[in-house]
Amino acid sequence: MKTVRIAIIGHGFMGHEHEAMLSEMDGIQLVGISDIDPVQLEDVKKGIKRYQNNEELFADPEVDVVLIAANNNQHHDLVIQAARAGKDVICEKPVAMSLEELDDMVRVTEECGVKFTVHHQRRMDPDFRIMKEVYDQKELGEVYMLKNSLYGFNGNMHDWHIYKSEGGGMLYDWGVHLLDQILWMMPGAKITSVYADIRNVINEEVDDYFKILLRFDNNVTAEVELGTYVLTDKEQDKWFERHWIMSGNKGTAYVDGFDSEGKIVRTTRLLSNAGNGRTMTAAGPTRSFGPPVPGILTTEALPEVNTCHRDYFENYIKAYNGEEEFLVKISETRRVLALMDAVRESGRTGKSIAFE
Amino acid sequence: MKTVRIAIIGHGFMGHEHEAMLSEMDGIQLVGISDIDPVQLEDVKKGIKRYQNNEELFADPEVDVVLIAANNNQHHDLVIQAARAGKDVICEKPVAMSLEELDDMVRVTEECGVKFTVHHQRRMDPDFRIMKEVYDQKELGEVYMLKNSLYGFNGNMHDWHIYKSEGGGMLYDWGVHLLDQILWMMPGAKITSVYADIRNVINEEVDDYFKILLRFDNNVTAEVELGTYVLTDKEQDKWFERHWIMSGNKGTAYVDGFDSEGKIVRTTRLLSNAGNGRTMTAAGPTRSFGPPVPGILTTEALPEVNTCHRDYFENYIKAYNGEEEFLVKISETRRVLALMDAVRESGRTGKSIAFE
Repeated sequence: MKTVRIAIIGHGFMGHEHEAMLSEMDGIQLVGISDIDPVQLEDVKKGIKRYQNNEELFADPEVDVVLIAANNNQHHDLVIQAARAGKDVICEKPVAMSLEELDDMVRVTEECGVKFTVHHQRRMDPDFRIMKEVYDQKELGEVYMLKNSLYGFNGNMHDWHIYKSEGGGMLYDWGVHLLDQILWMMPGAKITSVYADIRNVINEEVDDYFKILLRFDNNVTAEVELGTYVLTDKEQDKWFERHWIMSGNKGTAYVDGFDSEGKIVRTTRLLSNAGNGRTMTAAGPTRSFGPPVPGILTTEALPEVNTCHRDYFENYIKAYNGEEEFLVKISETRRVLALMDAVRESGRTGKSIAFE
Repeated sequence: MKTVRIAIIGHGFMGHEHEAMLSEMDGIQLVGISDIDPVQLEDVKKGIKRYQNNEELFADPEVDVVLIAANNNQHHDLVIQAARAGKDVICEKPVAMSLEELDDMVRVTEECGVKFTVHHQRRMDPDFRIMKEVYDQKELGEVYMLKNSLYGFNGNMHDWHIYKSEGGGMLYDWGVHLLDQILWMMPGAKITSVYADIRNVINEEVDDYFKILLRFDNNVTAEVELGTYVLTDKEQDKWFERHWIMSGNKGTAYVDGFDSEGKIVRTTRLLSNAGNGRTMTAAGPTRSFGPPVPGILTTEALPEVNTCHRDYFENYIKAYNGEEEFLVKISETRRVLALMDAVRESGRTGKSIAFE
């Protein structure tokens, strides 16, 4: 297989991540890195070129593929410039700031005959892939509810992500990942309606909280909720309980945190009074919401998955050599962008938006 | 103060609860109990009359007030019959199956000049009152998010609650309480839109899962989510974590379970990178969603409240004697019923519903 020779535009957080990964992968040669801020290039590893500017990068005949990890608002122009220079392109997510931008990028990359895909590496997140496996294997019967929650502790966003003009905010930073995961998990399902609450809680310019409900025609309602400032004082090892919950009429699966502790939980009895179990609480007696009687719950291990972000580029190498399809198709990223438009419209109007 | 002489219609779960409480309260005399099923009367306590039928109850001159704890679909007729018999009325929630029923009940009780209120005792739940106190005291700055979650383990509903014709289902059983709590917490706020997902997951006839989002004009989006079949295998003492979460731009408050463990959590720093903290996870590095660095979170105790369901009837005695207002006004229960209509319409159509 031909080694893929890649150059990176942008040596910020993701640029550094890419540098670390690509410089150690077989099948990829990391040729060089550019950044509009020369200071950002000072710590580029030995043996990797430091381009003075993007023109020098685009002109480098040793570069097959440009990996664009610049600020979100630069994706459009950089993808087009790279394509016009005859380079294949991997763009960071969100691929574009609007559908119009994306359609423009698609037109030019097609005209130039270059390969074009997007770095949606979170399709390889083990926590997500476990839930996808539970869904694909129909472990829970008819799934009705799927929820992904992410709570942070400091309201903080980083670097240029605090600026609206740069494409900042959590919808662009994490939202596109979380929505892409849900859509890719259930590829045949159409979204019938979208409802979203979006807030700038701590940040002035950009969103740092959102709750998005997607109603699908396969009977699932999926929720993604993210807040950079929804606080808890749980112990560190319990920090991120119930990152994912999926529930069906045959049980519930949950995943705690990114490192994917979790279980499938079922009941041994259904629709029978649990010994007429009546729990007295400070809010009076309850039959439905007390703790379970011993023995009524059973657990099973979650399916095992073995994926990591490196797999994104392993696929890229094979797909570049024609041995596989690219993991991320532009049509999929276009659907996510269209969904983001509906999400923002719902957040702005307070109304649900019909979709698909 | 005049002792309030009460008779109960319906000796099921709530009838028994009322019997236990009212028979031991000063200021109230529990005169008697009726039930359409004579077997239900076998365990009525000594010294309390067992009426052969409701007519006998209505005709009893020793009865001032009829407390209606029969199936939901019987509330309308029983309230009207009690009023026509000249009795004051306390009706269990939901007060009626429709706005039309309620308006009818209001007309007749006004015509008959009898007192009419509803048993929304969950306004006295300590878990709820703590959150209301946090809200009233503006402990969290500008609140944007309020969430009440209740997950059960067996899909079970009890007795007649499994039948649609009797007014069964969790929306009627718990939903009206949870919505009433939210509306009563923020009495000045108008609801601008309602979005709901309602399911029959395990039960054939009646709803046993719902997620309801209420957007208010005070900038709060409130969520109530309840599922009788959303399972977890947490230890018993952790069974019901995060029953309530309220978040504002100055912190988050949470309450675990009905017995109201919880904290107010704040951060010592805001909008600063937490030491550029980068946590490596199985899903790659994260700066926003790793566990907090030591010292960044501070906690405060939740406000103390001292309320219980008995307070509902303590208020009733005083209000009956003209010393206080009745805790629960019919106009408030009418608003909850109207909201329930919007909730069901949203659940049915999958669209948000404009409200107020």
